[in-house]
Amino acid sequence: MSSVRLTIAEAEDMVAAALERSGTSAVNARSVAAALVAAEADGLKGHGLSRVPTYAAQARVGKVDGRAIPTAATPRPGLVAIDAAHGFAYPALALAEERLPDVTRRQGIAAAAIRRSHHCGAAGHPVERLAGAGLVSLLFANAPAAIAPAGGARALFGTNPIAFACPVEGRPPIVIDLSLSKVARGNVLAAKQRGEPIPEGWALDAAGRPTTDPVAALAGTMVPLGDAKGTVLALMVELLAAGLTDARYASEASSFLDAEGAPPGTGQLVIAIDPDAFGGNASTRFALLAEMIEAEPGSRLPGSRRLALRAAARKDGLTVGEGLVREIKAI
Amino acid sequence: MSSVRLTIAEAEDMVAAALERSGTSAVNARSVAAALVAAEADGLKGHGLSRVPTYAAQARVGKVDGRAIPTAATPRPGLVAIDAAHGFAYPALALAEERLPDVTRRQGIAAAAIRRSHHCGAAGHPVERLAGAGLVSLLFANAPAAIAPAGGARALFGTNPIAFACPVEGRPPIVIDLSLSKVARGNVLAAKQRGEPIPEGWALDAAGRPTTDPVAALAGTMVPLGDAKGTVLALMVELLAAGLTDARYASEASSFLDAEGAPPGTGQLVIAIDPDAFGGNASTRFALLAEMIEAEPGSRLPGSRRLALRAAARKDGLTVGEGLVREIKAI
Repeated sequence: MSSVRLTIAEAEDMVAAALERSGTSAVNARSVAAALVAAEADGLKGHGLSRVPTYAAQARVGKVDGRAIPTAATPRPGLVAIDAAHGFAYPALALAEERLPDVTRRQGIAAAAIRRSHHCGAAGHPVERLAGAGLVSLLFANAPAAIAPAGGARALFGTNPIAFACPVEGRPPIVIDLSLSKVARGNVLAAKQRGEPIPEGWALDAAGRPTTDPVAALAGTMVPLGDAKGTVLALMVELLAAGLTDARYASEASSFLDAEGAPPGTGQLVIAIDPDAFGGNASTRFALLAEMIEAEPGSRLPGSRRLALRAAARKDGLTVGEGLVREIKAI
Repeated sequence: MSSVRLTIAEAEDMVAAALERSGTSAVNARSVAAALVAAEADGLKGHGLSRVPTYAAQARVGKVDGRAIPTAATPRPGLVAIDAAHGFAYPALALAEERLPDVTRRQGIAAAAIRRSHHCGAAGHPVERLAGAGLVSLLFANAPAAIAPAGGARALFGTNPIAFACPVEGRPPIVIDLSLSKVARGNVLAAKQRGEPIPEGWALDAAGRPTTDPVAALAGTMVPLGDAKGTVLALMVELLAAGLTDARYASEASSFLDAEGAPPGTGQLVIAIDPDAFGGNASTRFALLAEMIEAEPGSRLPGSRRLALRAAARKDGLTVGEGLVREIKAI
């Protein structure tokens, strides 16, 4: 399969233009393009350019409101309640990132709850930027139903990422970003788009049987990490990201991957803490644990591969499949 | 192995007396006894009466300060910084539970950070009580080193529980409590005390080989849930429960299971959120998801087995091994 080399700026321009042609406002198109290209640059292809065709199709029919302007209220001193207004999640997440630092420094801890939202994308990016602002943060996001409760067959939980980041003295933040399926569902979508099978153990078909067919997998459920314990974590994220925020649960949400039905209306919860508030020297302590992990032969910090890929993408540009580039340009 | 039947009150009196004889103050002995007996009643034997001999031995030599009085400061409006003063964790957790409801209702979100702490015990219990007070909460606790980072061999993380609870309209709270090892390390300790082997897949010996010998397992590492993803969650909990709170990391902490060395000095972080702050009807929404899970054949809410065991223990008392009762009475 032949591929095309694009600079970061070229890729962002291409994506933003496709979204604008699909009815997205210029400012939102820029926000979405930056998020998707950043995911692509980090090697997170399931949250990268592979999403453009479905995003554009959803914007065209109004399943996502490309012109939505997210709004924020402050129901309590430590809380920011954000209505994404059925637009893309990225502008709403940007509003959370804009509001949280001041509130968190004043209160010590703060949370932004986002409702009527959409696909969260690379969940590590918002928390990484908050770490850049000196904060420790957690992000919980729900997603359309993909994981069944332990013992059950029907999917009631999304693959529901948990992300965490903290500032580290003298080095880049530690960033953790994991979906609660054994692998992210975006990988299955990307395999489908490439026309390739998926490894066994990633997913079950609609009848609950193991499958290597990405189409059958997308109609079935994802295998959770750690089996029953993973389903319990997925439940916790549903309750935090959707139940608490007044967003839609996984099983109430329409797909992120097609242009059918009502807006997904999923939710995100971001919790930020000021690490300087406790009087210890938290970012120096965080550095110590990072050093211990790197000193252990064979182990490395999570996210180190991602940072290397990002640096390479900034230097050499992105390598994107020719078919996908053609598809995006034809939008 | 013959066993003894004890009422909840008899068990608490027996444990408190043993701890008092070991140099623990009456008020702390009552707090610890209530926590251990509550864990035993819920079927969480690894956090139950099996801990009494090691707790008492630690109190006797001052590895845990049985007379410590935890203190709380308020460095920011939304934060409670608690010094457990190298005493048992339970009185410090009780102080967090006492302070958090008022602060959380006022701020919308609050956190209690506990440093110079000890074994957290059944992590679901503090969050369950906060749910009883109408709050959504999360608890992160670190523990002495038991899990190696992905790719490494040396344990740098504890089995580090994550707990969550939320109030549910018209029914008991949903309570999630999971350690990040495939099984809780307390189960290995309990197996050792019973003189029984452990199932394969729970633990590795000190050379990294699978083992069914609980003694070899306690000298080695625990297998994390979900492999590499589980080690990343364990890292996240270390950073939140110890790095942020100025407590000791897993690899800096002495064992909870013997009376050797300095106090463990581990940490806990409790985050509480007022579910009424967002204007949705969160506890009704939480009930809806609980109903969806129960409506799915074969699945049930986490914690339902625990509640059934608790009810049975209240009615019929606890069944405790005769050897353990003799050991506790001989303290």
